[in-house]
Amino acid sequence: MDWWIQDTMSDFEVHNQLLNDCAVVGDAELCRVLLMNDARFPWLILVPRINGLRDFHEVSNEHRPALFEEIESASLVVKKLIDADKINVAALGNQVPQLHVHVIGRLKSDAAWPGPVWGVGVPAPYQDIERDQRINSVVETMGLSSESRAS
Amino acid sequence: MDWWIQDTMSDFEVHNQLLNDCAVVGDAELCRVLLMNDARFPWLILVPRINGLRDFHEVSNEHRPALFEEIESASLVVKKLIDADKINVAALGNQVPQLHVHVIGRLKSDAAWPGPVWGVGVPAPYQDIERDQRINSVVETMGLSSESRAS
Repeated sequence: MDWWIQDTMSDFEVHNQLLNDCAVVGDAELCRVLLMNDARFPWLILVPRINGLRDFHEVSNEHRPALFEEIESASLVVKKLIDADKINVAALGNQVPQLHVHVIGRLKSDAAWPGPVWGVGVPAPYQDIERDQRINSVVETMGLSSESRAS
Repeated sequence: MDWWIQDTMSDFEVHNQLLNDCAVVGDAELCRVLLMNDARFPWLILVPRINGLRDFHEVSNEHRPALFEEIESASLVVKKLIDADKINVAALGNQVPQLHVHVIGRLKSDAAWPGPVWGVGVPAPYQDIERDQRINSVVETMGLSSESRAS
């Protein structure tokens, strides 16, 4: 990790709304990885640890390869968790102004198929054990640092 | 453009469902650019001209910089067209298996805000003049080749 990322990240904080909806999984090189608290879908959220980003295209050339790699890594994890039929990747951010990228594993039998997942039905919060198993699985497969988890 | 892209692209076709819903705007280096026929939102779709791609992470390292640049270019266009408050970028593909990336300019006053646009209300097809103006504006700003438009 170069000094500039470290420096910028020192006062990085995830938006409160995301922290309310998700568990912190850990840090990849660029992004903090969150798990949406909805057991209906394996749903990760990647938040680049750089303040001031809103739209996807605002990620600088320097950080684009890492973002793409982390989207790939998250995609392979959610695919593996449920043998997903499709991966949805999206940066919407109409409700939370901090740039965050949804990576969601979808099944043809899931609660929202074939539509998008946002706003569909009622989230099904994880049981603690189930959530921790999923978090451990993501940390291990993505090779995340988990120091941020207590923050 | 390298020979490999040209070669792979020679038998490239956009999925029929996308052609039914959109007008072809033109070609950037990597993607064919489409305009969704829904005047409620400035809504572009980027289809990498490589056969066999389904999920976002399947784009190879070689083509990722171009895809990111074209998402940026499309984002700046839809932003400029309506002085958008937010850009939504998404690769969902639950209904059309060919990889395509939505780039949508959003206003806090639009028909779907703050939700996503998919499946909301009834599309408002463009008038011919309005569509052609928008296409010309996108071709010019993104610097697209328009040879594919008649296809």
